[in-house]
Amino acid sequence: MSSPTTVGFIGLGAMGEPMAHALLRAGFPVVAAAHRNRTPLERLAASGARAVAHPGAVAAESDIVVLCVPDAPQVDDALFAEHGVAGGLHEGSIVVDMSTISPVASRRFAERLAQRGIGFVDAPVSGGPMRAQSGTLTIMVGASDEHFARVRAVLEAMGTPHHLGPVGMGETVKLVNQIAIGSIMIANAEALMFARKAGADLDAVREVLKSATASNYVLEQWIPKTWLGAGFDGGFAMDLLRKDLAAALDAARSLGHPMPQAALAHQLYTLQAETDGKRDYTAIAKLYGAQEH
Amino acid sequence: MSSPTTVGFIGLGAMGEPMAHALLRAGFPVVAAAHRNRTPLERLAASGARAVAHPGAVAAESDIVVLCVPDAPQVDDALFAEHGVAGGLHEGSIVVDMSTISPVASRRFAERLAQRGIGFVDAPVSGGPMRAQSGTLTIMVGASDEHFARVRAVLEAMGTPHHLGPVGMGETVKLVNQIAIGSIMIANAEALMFARKAGADLDAVREVLKSATASNYVLEQWIPKTWLGAGFDGGFAMDLLRKDLAAALDAARSLGHPMPQAALAHQLYTLQAETDGKRDYTAIAKLYGAQEH
Repeated sequence: MSSPTTVGFIGLGAMGEPMAHALLRAGFPVVAAAHRNRTPLERLAASGARAVAHPGAVAAESDIVVLCVPDAPQVDDALFAEHGVAGGLHEGSIVVDMSTISPVASRRFAERLAQRGIGFVDAPVSGGPMRAQSGTLTIMVGASDEHFARVRAVLEAMGTPHHLGPVGMGETVKLVNQIAIGSIMIANAEALMFARKAGADLDAVREVLKSATASNYVLEQWIPKTWLGAGFDGGFAMDLLRKDLAAALDAARSLGHPMPQAALAHQLYTLQAETDGKRDYTAIAKLYGAQEH
Repeated sequence: MSSPTTVGFIGLGAMGEPMAHALLRAGFPVVAAAHRNRTPLERLAASGARAVAHPGAVAAESDIVVLCVPDAPQVDDALFAEHGVAGGLHEGSIVVDMSTISPVASRRFAERLAQRGIGFVDAPVSGGPMRAQSGTLTIMVGASDEHFARVRAVLEAMGTPHHLGPVGMGETVKLVNQIAIGSIMIANAEALMFARKAGADLDAVREVLKSATASNYVLEQWIPKTWLGAGFDGGFAMDLLRKDLAAALDAARSLGHPMPQAALAHQLYTLQAETDGKRDYTAIAKLYGAQEH
């Protein structure tokens, strides 16, 4: 039997850290490097990961390198800056980019790495930190059949991978999800704040909507834990959703596809982001008069 | 034991007809009158209902009269026009209005009927014709505790009643549902048509979104049966949704509550209603390039 695949992990943020822990729990040797904040790396090392100096060193010891960073410029840095992943990887290894970025950027990274004989898979996720923790993320994958087969077990340690087409198609379908949740969250905020101002009991309203046609995941699973639960800190940062909606609107423009509602949603999050950009995107409810508690 | 409650039924449309059949199946004696089209009344009579000449005659034989008509003017007509329900009802009987209308109008009807010693309950539903058929609608009820207790068994024959507050609160919460679905449907249309134009496979995309944060009832239960299934005929007419959104926007204005996304949704449905007002509201996808099939 071949030795187990060693997985390098770059980007131990709110999503990346629990995803890397899920890989360790599934038995994969994990190698990682610190970025600005050493604490997540120390926690990961305490659970059995090997800590090295920089992304290039991560790559040198890995068969597959997973990236989970905010946006395309950070992917570019992680891959191609001094001491970057591309310099350390050997031919035949694969980069799995689990960041949410533009599919156009994904295809460009894939081309640049292919010139060095390195594979590229885009595999953005949906589900938030709690599902990252439990290894039950939804993973949207763009890859050749061969590359998908080689990274599948690694992805399965973090959730359920869906192979949707060639490189770029994972990001495309992730943007489809973001287009939808951007407006669905605002629909919930407008509707619930209408209910509250009309004197309805929000718990009773949510209970009814669960079995009505307005039933949706954000309302039933996300809002109770954030806006109506622990508050607006943590969760999924409004600035990240704004970035995703901007990427979707750019892609839509190049397809000649109109999205007036997504465009409005982007504007409304931009209004609220000045005060709450770093907080969970349910904080859009404050635009409609929701109070902190 | 008292004799069973006789239920009068006014409004045998796409929703009303299956709801009246559900009452018969549950063992309630049902009395109904024809409106324009006699066919639904004949089908109901063939299943055991008693057919009479007009709403006043329905009321004269009923303990509880259920209304299920398009909007407030039709409720007004059914109650107060010549041979209307109000003239036939005896003191102590109750009108259950299951139409979706403005809560302001509901409260006005309740006051006018109270002057004649007649009770009023607003009980709009969510779920569509298929759930009306199976008696599994979600029913949002505004009523006094006493009136709710008296109509509860009748409502339970048609679905699950949720008592949400005094008269008007059923309609308020129904509008909350409509505010949400108006924008959620457009979110799905913008997102799915983006996916299609980007070359994604829509079946695969829907399968992924089911387990992602964009998961919603309209996408999983409604769109496959209409837009992507039998087509845009039948279902829930776009003109009815436009009427509901207009009522919600009016109510929001009186509450000083901003709903920019619901306002945009109303405008977009209005754009498409010129050709598709009588068809299912998924036909909004045509605005984004969806084809008839």
